[in-house]
Amino acid sequence: MAGGELALIEAFERLLERGQASDPRVLRALGDDASVVRAGAYAVTSIDTVTEGVHFRSAQLTPAEIGHRAVAGAASDLAAMGAAPGEAHLALGLPTGYRGAPELMEGAENVARSCGLTIAGGDITRAAELFVSVAVTGWAEDPATLIGRDGARPGDLVGVTGELGGAAGGLALLDGRVEIDDAVARAALRARYAVPEPRLSAGRALAAAGARAMIDLSDGLATDAGHLARRSGVELELWLSALPLSPGLDEVAEQLGIAAAELAATGGDDYELCVCVPPSASAIAAAAARSCKLNLTWIGKVHRGAAGVRFADSAKPGLRGYEHSL
Amino acid sequence: MAGGELALIEAFERLLERGQASDPRVLRALGDDASVVRAGAYAVTSIDTVTEGVHFRSAQLTPAEIGHRAVAGAASDLAAMGAAPGEAHLALGLPTGYRGAPELMEGAENVARSCGLTIAGGDITRAAELFVSVAVTGWAEDPATLIGRDGARPGDLVGVTGELGGAAGGLALLDGRVEIDDAVARAALRARYAVPEPRLSAGRALAAAGARAMIDLSDGLATDAGHLARRSGVELELWLSALPLSPGLDEVAEQLGIAAAELAATGGDDYELCVCVPPSASAIAAAAARSCKLNLTWIGKVHRGAAGVRFADSAKPGLRGYEHSL
Repeated sequence: MAGGELALIEAFERLLERGQASDPRVLRALGDDASVVRAGAYAVTSIDTVTEGVHFRSAQLTPAEIGHRAVAGAASDLAAMGAAPGEAHLALGLPTGYRGAPELMEGAENVARSCGLTIAGGDITRAAELFVSVAVTGWAEDPATLIGRDGARPGDLVGVTGELGGAAGGLALLDGRVEIDDAVARAALRARYAVPEPRLSAGRALAAAGARAMIDLSDGLATDAGHLARRSGVELELWLSALPLSPGLDEVAEQLGIAAAELAATGGDDYELCVCVPPSASAIAAAAARSCKLNLTWIGKVHRGAAGVRFADSAKPGLRGYEHSL
Repeated sequence: MAGGELALIEAFERLLERGQASDPRVLRALGDDASVVRAGAYAVTSIDTVTEGVHFRSAQLTPAEIGHRAVAGAASDLAAMGAAPGEAHLALGLPTGYRGAPELMEGAENVARSCGLTIAGGDITRAAELFVSVAVTGWAEDPATLIGRDGARPGDLVGVTGELGGAAGGLALLDGRVEIDDAVARAALRARYAVPEPRLSAGRALAAAGARAMIDLSDGLATDAGHLARRSGVELELWLSALPLSPGLDEVAEQLGIAAAELAATGGDDYELCVCVPPSASAIAAAAARSCKLNLTWIGKVHRGAAGVRFADSAKPGLRGYEHSL
């Protein structure tokens, strides 16, 4: 084992040690074959991988941002279920000579902590290209409090947290496809792509407020709302003109030569939540989002009809988000 | 999404559907942001990755064997804790054009089922080289029934399940470094490498029989027993001449020009269990292993002393297994 690799394993061990020390649920995180954690009644688990050249380019992001995005993307799945945050286990695939791993782990740890997750274990291996697989577990005492994609009913309102399109704008900036003069706007767009915030508290608050179906927006609203519509067997009528646009998106969209709302509907990686709520619960749902410092914008309605998404005010039929897994 | 990729996702969905249908603990496995599973009191979790060219070569194994080994390696960590099997979540990284994924998933599912695990979720992504990350969770009602690496005490006996060296022999065969005429012996050695059996029942039985410390043998006895010794702060005196050798290992070792016992002590991927047991519990531990159709062979003793492994009857000091993770 080379010196750099030993240092890396020690950095990982320190990370696990901190997790174990700070989280009384974690009985064993370090030095054993597996972590041991006091469980809730129901485990909510997702695994998510980001790979070089598919989900990110190392030339565009710091190692800390790569670690952040990997954990945020997995944690976002827990948010979409309305689960309480639990633990994360990281599997790192590192190309020979990769120097960024300690910083990557720090980025992973910081976002994990910020959303209440403890990194309780992991695995480091050599790989041809950098990848990070993150398994996250959340907990629920009653499975009825968890929100699937399958519960939307005709008459429900469709809401979305925060703003859309910012991550796509940030990526366009990093790709050099657009130029923004205002440094503040530039930094804000870049941050939406580089350090997304998983909406764990909002997910739990919306679940408690009566959400019937929920999904996080990783592949873009058009695609992800389509998953929800098909799983629920309903038609989602969405209103392009109602979409909440990230600040600065107008300028990005203009340079790209597409409508800002269309970019907001199709751009991926925003990690906002799309939620279906019966009209009777709409005020309490909006208040729940506000309690997490997020706007909830009503962007459509659920109908009986062909399972899928229909943009009521789009000239183009069949808007699609990108699908970054395959 | 190309037709082949859609077929792949459908194959994965069928796998999850079967898991959900066959395991009443699994409430949601399919079509949601995360799986939902009824938990035990304590979650025991490990994540493990195998990557092309580091842990296996696609030219040497069928896709089903690659899937089998990936799940077996992760499940073996649960065995070493004495945990009851629970769920597995798979993250597949597939090179463009890779055709083996459905078969790989079948191999993963078969070994999962054979050791009581349910595949409850997963993620498929493109990657430069094939990799499989497997997060496994087992369960325990009382954390005191789980066996760490840190419990070995002076006076304990050191035992090992099954036979050692077979996987290293199988790999030598596949690498073309040795030739074995007997087709049965050849197939048996190859199987030890290609389709290892994680010792989940034996792990639980040994835990119940009074094991004080346990580790699974992935990097080889010399290395893995060293981890256990250091975590327990004890010296493990091991007897090379006592190691149980896989059938056919003598011939392999002769062709490789090393002692068979040395190959058994250093070869990786056997996934047997190394266990420390107080002498008063040795008979019941051996009976526990036999109840799982495995021999338990006493291969050494625990002493006060410098934390580490000492081979009492080896001419070479400092035998090391390989470490396949970095």
